[in-house]
Amino acid sequence: MRPAKLDDAQRQAALATLDGWQVVPGRDALTRQFRFADFNAAFGWMTQVALMAEKLDHHPEWFNVYNRVDVTLTTHDAGGVTELDVQLARFMSRAAA
Amino acid sequence: MRPAKLDDAQRQAALATLDGWQVVPGRDALTRQFRFADFNAAFGWMTQVALMAEKLDHHPEWFNVYNRVDVTLTTHDAGGVTELDVQLARFMSRAAA
Repeated sequence: MRPAKLDDAQRQAALATLDGWQVVPGRDALTRQFRFADFNAAFGWMTQVALMAEKLDHHPEWFNVYNRVDVTLTTHDAGGVTELDVQLARFMSRAAA
Repeated sequence: MRPAKLDDAQRQAALATLDGWQVVPGRDALTRQFRFADFNAAFGWMTQVALMAEKLDHHPEWFNVYNRVDVTLTTHDAGGVTELDVQLARFMSRAAA
């Protein structure tokens, strides 16, 4: 079963546990910008995230230019942020730390 | 030595040899949208491109969501499209074919 959309209180509680993530203005989605030493480090991180995304069957929206990756997470099926997004966000932060 | 920016005639000639690429309106850059069977295929292709980008020391701007990758190529050092962009664009098209 796919997880349900978090309500406002649940989303705020989840955000409080996440490092550097914010709600996208006007959209039920989480966003964070990551910066790395160079493209090699950025893409290495993206590869770690891609493997986890496949495992979760849950995929990011992301934009990369050189050492920068802008990520947006939301669960299209649920119409908003779910526990899956929180899980993937937590993995991304940990892998980039 | 880094390549010089192509002039209009050179850019048009290069575009004529590239499959599905266009000039970005209002920007001296090339763009193409790629679609794949799923995220796995899209990210597999991105990985091939990343290895080539490192080899060329020339990197794309790209946005991925699930099976879609939107690519923009330009050479920041040169302030526009150079032979490096044409080379990377050609590689991307071939790898996606």
